[in-house]
Amino acid sequence: MAQRAPLGVAVIGTGRMGTDHVRRIQQVTSGARVSAVVDVDAERAKAVAARVDGCTAYPDPAAAMAAADVDAVLVASPGPAHEAALLTAFEHDLPVLCEKPLAPDAATALRIMEAEQKLGRRRVQVGFMRRYDPEYAKLKALLETGQLGRPLMLHNRHRNVASPPFFTSDMLITDSVVHETDAARWLLGDEITAVTVLRPNPSSNAPDGLLDPQFIVFETDGGAVVDVEIFVNCGFGYQVQAEVVCERGTARIGDGHALVTNMAGRWGGTIAQDFTDRFEAAYDLQIQAWVDATRRGEVTGPSVWDGYAAAAVCETGVTALTEGGRREVELIDRPELYRS
Amino acid sequence: MAQRAPLGVAVIGTGRMGTDHVRRIQQVTSGARVSAVVDVDAERAKAVAARVDGCTAYPDPAAAMAAADVDAVLVASPGPAHEAALLTAFEHDLPVLCEKPLAPDAATALRIMEAEQKLGRRRVQVGFMRRYDPEYAKLKALLETGQLGRPLMLHNRHRNVASPPFFTSDMLITDSVVHETDAARWLLGDEITAVTVLRPNPSSNAPDGLLDPQFIVFETDGGAVVDVEIFVNCGFGYQVQAEVVCERGTARIGDGHALVTNMAGRWGGTIAQDFTDRFEAAYDLQIQAWVDATRRGEVTGPSVWDGYAAAAVCETGVTALTEGGRREVELIDRPELYRS
Amino acid sequence: MAQRAPLGVAVIGTGRMGTDHVRRIQQVTSGARVSAVVDVDAERAKAVAARVDGCTAYPDPAAAMAAADVDAVLVASPGPAHEAALLTAFEHDLPVLCEKPLAPDAATALRIMEAEQKLGRRRVQVGFMRRYDPEYAKLKALLETGQLGRPLMLHNRHRNVASPPFFTSDMLITDSVVHETDAARWLLGDEITAVTVLRPNPSSNAPDGLLDPQFIVFETDGGAVVDVEIFVNCGFGYQVQAEVVCERGTARIGDGHALVTNMAGRWGGTIAQDFTDRFEAAYDLQIQAWVDATRRGEVTGPSVWDGYAAAAVCETGVTALTEGGRREVELIDRPELYRS
Amino acid sequence: MAQRAPLGVAVIGTGRMGTDHVRRIQQVTSGARVSAVVDVDAERAKAVAARVDGCTAYPDPAAAMAAADVDAVLVASPGPAHEAALLTAFEHDLPVLCEKPLAPDAATALRIMEAEQKLGRRRVQVGFMRRYDPEYAKLKALLETGQLGRPLMLHNRHRNVASPPFFTSDMLITDSVVHETDAARWLLGDEITAVTVLRPNPSSNAPDGLLDPQFIVFETDGGAVVDVEIFVNCGFGYQVQAEVVCERGTARIGDGHALVTNMAGRWGGTIAQDFTDRFEAAYDLQIQAWVDATRRGEVTGPSVWDGYAAAAVCETGVTALTEGGRREVELIDRPELYRS
Repeated sequence: MAQRAPLGVAVIGTGRMGTDHVRRIQQVTSGARVSAVVDVDAERAKAVAARVDGCTAYPDPAAAMAAADVDAVLVASPGPAHEAALLTAFEHDLPVLCEKPLAPDAATALRIMEAEQKLGRRRVQVGFMRRYDPEYAKLKALLETGQLGRPLMLHNRHRNVASPPFFTSDMLITDSVVHETDAARWLLGDEITAVTVLRPNPSSNAPDGLLDPQFIVFETDGGAVVDVEIFVNCGFGYQVQAEVVCERGTARIGDGHALVTNMAGRWGGTIAQDFTDRFEAAYDLQIQAWVDATRRGEVTGPSVWDGYAAAAVCETGVTALTEGGRREVELIDRPELYRS
Repeated sequence: MAQRAPLGVAVIGTGRMGTDHVRRIQQVTSGARVSAVVDVDAERAKAVAARVDGCTAYPDPAAAMAAADVDAVLVASPGPAHEAALLTAFEHDLPVLCEKPLAPDAATALRIMEAEQKLGRRRVQVGFMRRYDPEYAKLKALLETGQLGRPLMLHNRHRNVASPPFFTSDMLITDSVVHETDAARWLLGDEITAVTVLRPNPSSNAPDGLLDPQFIVFETDGGAVVDVEIFVNCGFGYQVQAEVVCERGTARIGDGHALVTNMAGRWGGTIAQDFTDRFEAAYDLQIQAWVDATRRGEVTGPSVWDGYAAAAVCETGVTALTEGGRREVELIDRPELYRS
Repeated sequence: MAQRAPLGVAVIGTGRMGTDHVRRIQQVTSGARVSAVVDVDAERAKAVAARVDGCTAYPDPAAAMAAADVDAVLVASPGPAHEAALLTAFEHDLPVLCEKPLAPDAATALRIMEAEQKLGRRRVQVGFMRRYDPEYAKLKALLETGQLGRPLMLHNRHRNVASPPFFTSDMLITDSVVHETDAARWLLGDEITAVTVLRPNPSSNAPDGLLDPQFIVFETDGGAVVDVEIFVNCGFGYQVQAEVVCERGTARIGDGHALVTNMAGRWGGTIAQDFTDRFEAAYDLQIQAWVDATRRGEVTGPSVWDGYAAAAVCETGVTALTEGGRREVELIDRPELYRS
Repeated sequence: MAQRAPLGVAVIGTGRMGTDHVRRIQQVTSGARVSAVVDVDAERAKAVAARVDGCTAYPDPAAAMAAADVDAVLVASPGPAHEAALLTAFEHDLPVLCEKPLAPDAATALRIMEAEQKLGRRRVQVGFMRRYDPEYAKLKALLETGQLGRPLMLHNRHRNVASPPFFTSDMLITDSVVHETDAARWLLGDEITAVTVLRPNPSSNAPDGLLDPQFIVFETDGGAVVDVEIFVNCGFGYQVQAEVVCERGTARIGDGHALVTNMAGRWGGTIAQDFTDRFEAAYDLQIQAWVDATRRGEVTGPSVWDGYAAAAVCETGVTALTEGGRREVELIDRPELYRS
């Protein structure tokens, strides 16, 4: 738990994802700071840097990576720019988190892989963030216990409210299903060996000419069959669901609630055994809210009045428990300080 | 998003809660560090401080609060010690997050409130962390929209697997139901005016003499009725559930999944509209994992091989989409670097 | 399974419930027929009888019960008329199904009980139909297995969209909660020993002066505590929910889906083990629909065309399984007879 | 609601399904009786007939269909025997309910269809009983409202605990998926035009050599894509699930609870609006139980004591409502007659 200096991160690309990562590193992540931002649009980079204390804007990745306060690189530029950024990071021997896709095609990815191999050790983490989703993580952990037996099939649903104007039929695969590609490989521990794509009637809510939805079937070298419904103009919401069917049961995530299993005559989920499990997020958010308010010079959250009222009610409750019957709670008038 | 110096926090009390808050502030919270720890057990305080860079152990709160690098205080000592710590913090004009209960009884809470009023402004946030739980927060937000109309009743269930050995019948109220006390006041915006406690048959799994479960009814000055099942030896899990019954519908949290409403002929919940909503935690956890691994000098997570395999599958998928039929995916042999 | 003569039933009272019971006995129930109907409104009784083959209308219960083709009596008249009808049935030694409430007050119920005791054997079944609801029946069966341990608390919700114009505050108890009264006694096997009624703020959707909702607490001679939310103007739907909290777990019905339990770290329900369990209702409804259509001289339901199409698809499927790949299904043109 | 003579049914085949249909017609169905049973095993037919009043056993279908008291035929013999039974029924112009499959292959089904066309009117209903399942019926009704838009995809899961010893890989299609074949055609109103069968790794719990599970994809003439997971040795239970994905939302059945939809930002189901909806089955079962007990000369169900206890509790409840506070219920001692 040592308080070493925070990690200085150069964020390459300040579009939607890059800007969001800058915010995240500054306001959410513990132990890191954004020390550099890079964008081909120099004005944009400067504007982002101006909002972050001790952050410098650079017009190109190489200059940023040469800076003394850059310890690591987060690549959030468009896919075709990834290769150059990664090779530059390799030259500076910097660790990289590279947004997906790693590269726009397999040949480019292969070149990046060869370059990393020459370094003799891994430097790159690819941004397949579903592996960090708490539900996917629980699903993976459950599979690893072996309780359900070997996975035989994986059913996926991937639905977006509406696709952006530039979306093409190919992008349903390369931009959306790419996530299921990684999730399937990771959950099953298999490589995908064959692909079949079925084309249902396009929805009348999809833009003209867009083949949406598609139904895709993967086969794996472990003998599993994976199906993916991709529907990017479903209209009703964003849904990512996965059900693994194993030899002794199934497990499903993404219904808007918890991991649900079918096993041995019962469907259902687990119940937390402890308040630290149930309320971990609440504790984290409480402390962050208190730190943020304090740094702004404010006091928010439950007040001393709230602490007093709870104490008075509990005292009365103990009397009611001991003596029986209905007991009235007595409170002083609420002071001015606690009235807002 | 300025990178000001992190907030220096003195943590008073290094028991279970205090130690967990030290870990949280160091490893989870952005913008804060633990600069001081205090415990009546000096060895214990030193051991905790030794694990945190730049953190000093103090035997008493006053010394810690006088230190130059202490900007704020987190009180996690036993309830009877809160008053003294708070009054000292008031002298140093330091903001405080004070674990619940604020005080062991209403009279003490009243004295603390009078002291804070003399300062003329709020300095204390009480640690009723349920207000920060994402499910409670959604429930509160839903109530505030007014869609459901005015709240009339609030049903609560509060269940623990088993009570600790020192738990008394009174503590079911003062230690457990105290949370529902605050949650009810906060959700309804009402003060509690009367309490009735019913005593069902004690469970044979409860320690001899412990009145467990209890069924408690609160009445509020807004005319609402609140009931609480408290059952601290339920055996099967930790559950905190709340259902608000309003004039036009009900809303329920804590079933192990999302907020579920009954409204206008339908039960159910909302569907995320966007990936930032559905996968916010995944992005946060991904970046934190990457920062933590990088600071340890490691590279973990999805590798370049994973990026390459995804690219190869997607390319084949596009061919299958365009040309129809089943298409085989071609991958190179997996290099040594990516085999573990 | 002997085909004895169907039971001839006299239905006393042809209001909403009585008329519905006439329909049920004629169209749903196996082994019974309505041989007599009685109403103080003679025209009404005649109109109902005219629609049923072999059914006679009578102006008073005694005349109906004296008829040779009356084997049993279903009392669906208003509560105050029950005592007279039951005493008459006792004179004719006829078995009776008496709609709830048995009597408008305890004293009348006591007189009926004394009369039945003089007969020396039970003749009356009271219409507490929740005991026959499949969900309540599953809940009762689960309690009887003892898996959950002894019941300690029972939480009930009883909600109606809107109350009829004649509904009074007392009737929330005598007309609505009367069901929970019986359900609680039956589920717990206890008698109720004390009642407390709390009055939340009335909903602004309730008629002026109606105390709606109410929150009622029962205590039982077995030491259980039972709470009932009764809310007859909830607006959104009709809901009857019950959760039994036992020493080792809880079980809940009425969420619009199946029995859900909390036990040993898991929430969830059972999965059918067999198609006869899952599709019992489908088989029953299929046969009833076929019998009803046949008696009307019609043929409905899946046709020979449907049988042929299924056979053709399955044959093609077997080829696809054996030979691999995508196989086209060949069907003849759909004949005229099967086009509607 | 006329009480015409019950329909006399000849049941052909007294195996598992045939015997169950005899029980159903005698004990569950209103307005029908079994007047004849037929089995190639004459002893078996006689044994079944002996348990049914007025039922004759015949060694062949033709003899049964010639009997004066046979109005309709239920064919539950093995598939290869269906054609002969149906042609005989056509000669006698009798309506038939024929268990699925209509015929073992498409060519036979075609001959049956030609024979029925010569009659010039439909005589046959095929036993695709899923069309009568309340969940499937709700799903079909929802699709027909048009709220969800046009169906684009249909996902099906069909799981059995274990397959019988005689089950072959082909039978996963011809015996199990045949149900999804009809359900898909019926729900979508389309014909199936192509079939692809994928073979995941067989489960180690499947008998040696059985290709189980299989993943089957249908394409329809309306442009929909239908997938079916068939897994007949899943071990954990019997599950039949279907999700229709439409242009504006999805609807799913078979999770062990109600129809669940995704629409316009919300997931969930409907809430009954009325007790007749929620408790229809309870009323039906109550009356049937009363009729059955009465015909056996017994009285079961809630007693006069239960009616009295409910009246006493409600009276006390009204006092508690009016006067406030906790009120004790007074009951007489429970008489002997009501003690069992």
